[in-house]
Amino acid sequence: MASEEPPQLKQVPSELPKVLVLRPPSVFTAYQKQFSQKFHFLKAWESPIPTDQFLTIYASSVQAMLCSGGTPITSDVLRHLPSLRVIVTTSAGLNHIDLSECRRRGICIANAGTVFSEDVADMAVGLLLDVLRRITAADRYVRGGLWPIKGDYPLASKLGDKRVGIVGLGSIGLEVARRLEAFGCTISYNSRKKKSSVSFPFYLNVCELAANSDILVICCALTDQTRHMINKEVLSALGEQGVIVNIGRGAVIDENELVHFLVQGKIAGAGLDVFENEPKVPTELVALNNVVLSPHRAVFTEESFLDLYELMSGNLEAFFSNKPLLSPIMDE
Amino acid sequence: MASEEPPQLKQVPSELPKVLVLRPPSVFTAYQKQFSQKFHFLKAWESPIPTDQFLTIYASSVQAMLCSGGTPITSDVLRHLPSLRVIVTTSAGLNHIDLSECRRRGICIANAGTVFSEDVADMAVGLLLDVLRRITAADRYVRGGLWPIKGDYPLASKLGDKRVGIVGLGSIGLEVARRLEAFGCTISYNSRKKKSSVSFPFYLNVCELAANSDILVICCALTDQTRHMINKEVLSALGEQGVIVNIGRGAVIDENELVHFLVQGKIAGAGLDVFENEPKVPTELVALNNVVLSPHRAVFTEESFLDLYELMSGNLEAFFSNKPLLSPIMDE
Repeated sequence: MASEEPPQLKQVPSELPKVLVLRPPSVFTAYQKQFSQKFHFLKAWESPIPTDQFLTIYASSVQAMLCSGGTPITSDVLRHLPSLRVIVTTSAGLNHIDLSECRRRGICIANAGTVFSEDVADMAVGLLLDVLRRITAADRYVRGGLWPIKGDYPLASKLGDKRVGIVGLGSIGLEVARRLEAFGCTISYNSRKKKSSVSFPFYLNVCELAANSDILVICCALTDQTRHMINKEVLSALGEQGVIVNIGRGAVIDENELVHFLVQGKIAGAGLDVFENEPKVPTELVALNNVVLSPHRAVFTEESFLDLYELMSGNLEAFFSNKPLLSPIMDE
Repeated sequence: MASEEPPQLKQVPSELPKVLVLRPPSVFTAYQKQFSQKFHFLKAWESPIPTDQFLTIYASSVQAMLCSGGTPITSDVLRHLPSLRVIVTTSAGLNHIDLSECRRRGICIANAGTVFSEDVADMAVGLLLDVLRRITAADRYVRGGLWPIKGDYPLASKLGDKRVGIVGLGSIGLEVARRLEAFGCTISYNSRKKKSSVSFPFYLNVCELAANSDILVICCALTDQTRHMINKEVLSALGEQGVIVNIGRGAVIDENELVHFLVQGKIAGAGLDVFENEPKVPTELVALNNVVLSPHRAVFTEESFLDLYELMSGNLEAFFSNKPLLSPIMDE
C-alpha cells in the first residue's frame, strides 16, 4: 500500500491511490501540488460530461472521496459509487453528507476534526466585538469622510459583564467560552446534554438560555434537530438588547425571522459568518449598521489551511494503509 | 461644603460649587442633568465673548475645572485662572494639559484612571481580530454584492500563536495581555522599566520588541518621550508580515511613515483608533483593505460613560469636601 512504498509511488503517479473529487475544496486548490504527489485525483469538475456519467465511467471502482462542506454527497451520488469506502470532508460540519446512507453502506467519514476550532472561536469573538463596539460601521463612517463633518460616532456597548449563552458546547463552543471569560463575560450554554467537564450553567431549553443571555453565540452543528432551532420564540426571549453571533450554519437560525427581528429593532445586532442560502445574503441586512456580514470565512486562515491539508492527507494515507482514520466522526 | 449640605444645595443651584468647563466633554453632555444637580457649571463654550475674556470676567475665582482630552489646557489658559486648584479630565491621557505648569502651581489633576482600561483593551483585541481576520474588509465585500460574483474571499491570518509586543504595559496593556493570552498569543512588552509583577519578556528597546513580534499593540501614553517613538526603524523591524494596532495616541506613531509602510506593503496591516490630526485621517488609508479605521472610540461605551460620570463627579465632590481625589494622577 501507499505508505509502504512512498518513493516508488511518488515516481509513478498513475499508481498513486485514486481519490475522487467532485468539486475542488479550497484547501485542495491551495495544496494541489502537495496532494497530487500522494494521490491520483479523479477530477469530476474538469470533465465535460455530466457528473453521474463521469462517476459511472471513471469512478465506479473508486474507494475514497475528498469533498468540502459545499458539495452535497447525496444518496444519488453514492449510488454511482458502489466501491466507496471512505469520505474525507474538509468541513467540520457533516450536513452536506447523507449520513444514514453512509451508515447503511458502512462508508467511513473523516472530517476536519478540531483543526478549525480556534480560528472559528476567534472569528466568533471578532464578530461579537465588532457588533458591540461597532467597528465595521465606524470604519464606514471614517472612510465615508463623516468624522470631521458629523463628529463623534454614537456610544457602543461594553463586552465585559455581558451574559453570553453558547448554543452547542463542542470544541468550538469551549474555545469561545475560554476567550470570552478573559473579557469578563459570564458563560452559560445549551447542548443536547449537560457536560460534566464544565461548571457553566446549563439550559436544556434554548429559549430559557436566550432569556438569561445578553448574547447568543451559535456554535452547534446543523442537524434535523437544530434546523431553525433559533426561531421567533428564541429571538423574542433574547430581546431588544440582545445580540446574536452565528459561526455554525445559517439554517440553525430561521433567517427570515432573524431579518425581521433586526429590521424591526427587536434585537440589537448580529454578527453572521453563515447564511441559509450562501452566497446569497438577505438584502435587508446590507442596509443595517448593527449587523456584520462575513462570507463564511471563520475557518479560512493560512494556518488552519496548512493544518487541514495535513489532516486530510493524513486521513487518506491512513485509509490506504489500512490504519485508523485520524479524525473519524463520532456518532454523537 | 457641598457634601455636608446636599439637600439645601440641591435646592439652591447658585450655591452649588462652581466648576469651569471650556468645552463640554461627551460624558458631560450625556450626564449633564446629573452633573448639574451637584455643581454649578461655568460654560465657556456657550458664551459669545472670547474665552480669555470669559475666564477673566467669570472664572478668575474658580477653583475646579472639568475638561476632556480634546481641550488643550495650556499655560495661557492657566494664567487666566489664578485660583484654580484642581483639573478633572475625562481622559486617561494627559498630553493636553501643561503638566509642568500645573506642577509649578500645585494644581492637582484627576483623570479617568482605569475606568476605560477594559473597554480600550477590548477595542485593541477587536481591531486586531478585525485586521487579521479581515472582518471589515469582508463585510464590504458582502455588502458590495461581490460574494456571489467573485467567490471566496482571500485567506486570513490566525491570531493564535502570534507573538504580540505590547508597547506600554500599564492597566490597559495588562488587560490586552490577559485577553490575548486566552487566544494563545505569546506576550512580550516594552516599557520605561521592567515590571516585577509580570513574567512576560521585557524589551527596553522598542525596536528589539518589534523585531521579535508579529504584532505591536500601542498602549502607552503620549509624552515627549513617546512622541513618534514608532518610527521608520521600528516599522522596518516589525517587517512585512507585521501588524500594528494603536489605541494610545496617534502621535506615538510617525503617521507619515506608517502610511508609507502600509501603502508600500512594508507592513501587513493596521488597526487604528487614533490619529495624529483627528478628526483628519490620511486619505491614503481610506483606500486600503488591510487597515481598520476607528474614530477614536475605544473608550466610548455606555457602560464606561456611567462609570466615568461617577468617577468625575466623585473627584469633584472629593475636592470640594477636602477629601483625597479618587483618581489623582501619579507622576510616574
